[in-house]
Amino acid sequence: MSEASEPTNQPPTEQPDRSIKSELKKRAKAAEKEKKAAEKAAKQQELAAQQAAAEADYAAEFYGTLPLHQSQSRPRQPRVDIASLPSRDGETVLLRARIHNSRAQGSKMVFLNLRQRIESVQALMIVAPEKVSKQMVKWAAGLATESIVLVEGVVKKSPEIIKSATVGTVEVEVSKLFLISGVEARLPFTVEDADRTEAEIEASGDQFNRVLLDTRLNNRVIDLRSQTNQAIFKIQAAVGDLFRQFLHSHGFLEIHSPKLQGAATESGASVFKVSYFKGGAFLAQSPQLAKQMAIAADFERVYEIGPVFRAEDSNTHRHLTEFMGLDLEMTIEEHYHEVMEMLDGLFLSIFHGLRDKYQKEIDVVNKQFPAEEFKWREGPEGTLKLSFKEAVDLLVEDGVAREELDDINTENEKRLGRIVRAKYETDYYIIDKFPMELRPFYTMPDPTDPTLSNSYDFFMRGEEILSGAQRIHDPKLLEQQMRDKGIEPESMRGYLDGFRLGCSPHGGGGIGLERVLMLFLKLNNIRRASLFPRDPKRLEP
Amino acid sequence: MSEASEPTNQPPTEQPDRSIKSELKKRAKAAEKEKKAAEKAAKQQELAAQQAAAEADYAAEFYGTLPLHQSQSRPRQPRVDIASLPSRDGETVLLRARIHNSRAQGSKMVFLNLRQRIESVQALMIVAPEKVSKQMVKWAAGLATESIVLVEGVVKKSPEIIKSATVGTVEVEVSKLFLISGVEARLPFTVEDADRTEAEIEASGDQFNRVLLDTRLNNRVIDLRSQTNQAIFKIQAAVGDLFRQFLHSHGFLEIHSPKLQGAATESGASVFKVSYFKGGAFLAQSPQLAKQMAIAADFERVYEIGPVFRAEDSNTHRHLTEFMGLDLEMTIEEHYHEVMEMLDGLFLSIFHGLRDKYQKEIDVVNKQFPAEEFKWREGPEGTLKLSFKEAVDLLVEDGVAREELDDINTENEKRLGRIVRAKYETDYYIIDKFPMELRPFYTMPDPTDPTLSNSYDFFMRGEEILSGAQRIHDPKLLEQQMRDKGIEPESMRGYLDGFRLGCSPHGGGGIGLERVLMLFLKLNNIRRASLFPRDPKRLEP
Repeated sequence: MSEASEPTNQPPTEQPDRSIKSELKKRAKAAEKEKKAAEKAAKQQELAAQQAAAEADYAAEFYGTLPLHQSQSRPRQPRVDIASLPSRDGETVLLRARIHNSRAQGSKMVFLNLRQRIESVQALMIVAPEKVSKQMVKWAAGLATESIVLVEGVVKKSPEIIKSATVGTVEVEVSKLFLISGVEARLPFTVEDADRTEAEIEASGDQFNRVLLDTRLNNRVIDLRSQTNQAIFKIQAAVGDLFRQFLHSHGFLEIHSPKLQGAATESGASVFKVSYFKGGAFLAQSPQLAKQMAIAADFERVYEIGPVFRAEDSNTHRHLTEFMGLDLEMTIEEHYHEVMEMLDGLFLSIFHGLRDKYQKEIDVVNKQFPAEEFKWREGPEGTLKLSFKEAVDLLVEDGVAREELDDINTENEKRLGRIVRAKYETDYYIIDKFPMELRPFYTMPDPTDPTLSNSYDFFMRGEEILSGAQRIHDPKLLEQQMRDKGIEPESMRGYLDGFRLGCSPHGGGGIGLERVLMLFLKLNNIRRASLFPRDPKRLEP
Repeated sequence: MSEASEPTNQPPTEQPDRSIKSELKKRAKAAEKEKKAAEKAAKQQELAAQQAAAEADYAAEFYGTLPLHQSQSRPRQPRVDIASLPSRDGETVLLRARIHNSRAQGSKMVFLNLRQRIESVQALMIVAPEKVSKQMVKWAAGLATESIVLVEGVVKKSPEIIKSATVGTVEVEVSKLFLISGVEARLPFTVEDADRTEAEIEASGDQFNRVLLDTRLNNRVIDLRSQTNQAIFKIQAAVGDLFRQFLHSHGFLEIHSPKLQGAATESGASVFKVSYFKGGAFLAQSPQLAKQMAIAADFERVYEIGPVFRAEDSNTHRHLTEFMGLDLEMTIEEHYHEVMEMLDGLFLSIFHGLRDKYQKEIDVVNKQFPAEEFKWREGPEGTLKLSFKEAVDLLVEDGVAREELDDINTENEKRLGRIVRAKYETDYYIIDKFPMELRPFYTMPDPTDPTLSNSYDFFMRGEEILSGAQRIHDPKLLEQQMRDKGIEPESMRGYLDGFRLGCSPHGGGGIGLERVLMLFLKLNNIRRASLFPRDPKRLEP
């Protein structure tokens, strides 16, 4: 309306030296023009009023905010997944999705990018008589990003592949749109921001928002909606599944051991204390004692997936105060290498499973976290196994002073990872035969050299992901080792009793789920591999 | 030896009135007899000495205590399971087992009952030249019950079915026997005692030891070796597996949420406090908040198997301070009954799975815990669903005063279980539409009657095993409900933020693993369904 009426309000251009005749003619023309314009304006106003009245009528029931969902009714109308849309060309579908973003095209059309987890599709709403009104388009265009909507529309082949959506071959022409849940707070960042790669941010000349890890973790619910995070936690669940499948097929039984303990399980320094009615308790630093007692109780092969608590004030990229332990313990017939080989088979089956069934998710994560492909050795040569001594020799050859290598610290561990990758072309290897003094009291000493132990660590990309060993099953030796490490045997009577009543030789290991995930995907910080991470400074959300 | 020499030491029977001739004759005879006996004895002694010398020689390397197993060698000799023995008739086998009990037959033979978990077999050792010496038999007969031994022997068809072993068609004729791990403490009870049924104890006129629950729990490692417990924990693992399999096939993702929380998750009264560096933390009373945040984070369908902590000073047959929660949460399209039906399908699949694949273990448990078979409804009529009001009416009809029934207490719950079993022939049913005031703050009210809620409990044999509901996904209503229940919304900001950023309608439920196990098997006390139970008075072992 405003554009049409503007000309009549402009002052006439003044011109000098004009004849009366031409002046009169001109005035008549102007008057006529004015009259016509007024008539046109009136007509348009009338039309607009008619249209407005008609629009308010014809589309009002096709859009709007739904009342709070309290399960008022159950019409049993099927709803579909975005992923299924390419096979539904021509169908009218109903779906619940988030508005990932929206873009109005004038007042008659709006494009919506609809998202369900890692899938998205383009939807468009176009004004159409008796179907879609301008008010409806305006309302749709005004919906906040991240709103949850119920959409009815027709699936149509898209004229060209839509690159901004994961489902690019079709789009949805929207006929109904309802708001299920709106956004009542300012978004700290958008999911698009959360998914942006470093390369995209750099290419934009830093125009895009770089969302820092702390901001993400403070607003974890929205951060987790990103494609990258949806993929990471699908892979996390897969690691657990593959762990269970392998062990199940090898006769292991799943157990659940208590996290509340009457005594510190391994070392008093890094244990959380709990108020327990009128007394105190401790949070288990591992299921070590319980799974060994399960062996003494004849369960033969057991595993547990459960939280592990460490009160270490370590603020590093790879420490959490609570993480998921994938633990196992099994009896040994002849040699602890039976356990080491079981664990090796377990890891290979996890790597294979991820590569064979989760390549799509790995690719999604790789976009944001580019990494050299994770390498491991296959076939007859098998996994690289070094003794602790051989590992030290490799580091010395590389220039590290032997005096520094009583233990291999984090920095040298990573250096070793680089040496091994260059020399043996693998990111996954085992170090066996650790010095006895570096291991916990329950570790079995080597039969010939008492300074060594029957223990091993497993590594991925130069970081430890598993620690394990043959355990002492003889109560006298166990008591002696406890005393040597300053632990009072009487404080662990229940545990010792298990061995006094006869216990098979056994061994096992504990895997940190988040570490495996972080290192396989090269996420660089363990907090990215935990749904709601906990560290000395973070207990929320 | 002793039996053969006894007669010569008996005094001659005295008789009166004898002739000299006959007397002389008699004496000569006696002298001759004595001489012969002496000769025989000397010969036998010589033989015995020869034999003993020979025996010490010929069997010494076939028995004895092995040195502490430190993985000294790896001969790769295959070892077998007792369960596989019936198919190995005639084979020489090697196996590791416990001595369940032993019985010497004179000095030349010993019977050993060998046990591996729930399987057992009879082994016998008989003196044989150059193979088994008397010393060897004596040593074997002296081995303590519960010792762990390495046995080599030949599998032979048993002359008749051996009832005292689970594998009764064959026995093992032992050629070598070594002690791997001995027993260095007095057994508080034997595994045979632990497995004895009440009927057997009564039939014995209480001659057998009745092992009380507290004694069992104080010595849990040995208690767990019983057939009954081996079966219980196999079924426990099966419940978890069946839970996961069903949810996996319905698109649920496994998550792991932190047990360390910055604020109490549900109610301040029953939460354990933890010292957290310089501050404090709480142990999660359920994964409720985390799984709802996972829904707000678009994971759509999630489940978690993890420990749940309740600081309730309840010393009953069905309360633990730490138990395993099987939790799930899912988005709702139209109605919260979608969740209720999912949970119903889940339980039916667990019941079916147990009945179809674990009948052997169920039978083992039933021997010690006789129970009416667990009943549920199948087919088109489906699971019994009562509203809270209908449940109250059933109790009132049965004679309970309506005034008592604002809530249904434990006693009335059990009464309802009996009423329902009699009337509907099922031990499994659902109660829907609980009064709002009985439910936690996050429960969605009924759309028409605000005193009711969209919530349900599931029952087995008259005891609650699951509690669930549609949740409030609207932040304003949630804040209001928090205030109504005396919770300060600001204390749960991270949780509320999830809803402020848009959240789909959703619902879920939490199952107590130990309760399901206890009620399915009718174990009568929840401690029997937990590997190492924790209650207000028990933190060990």
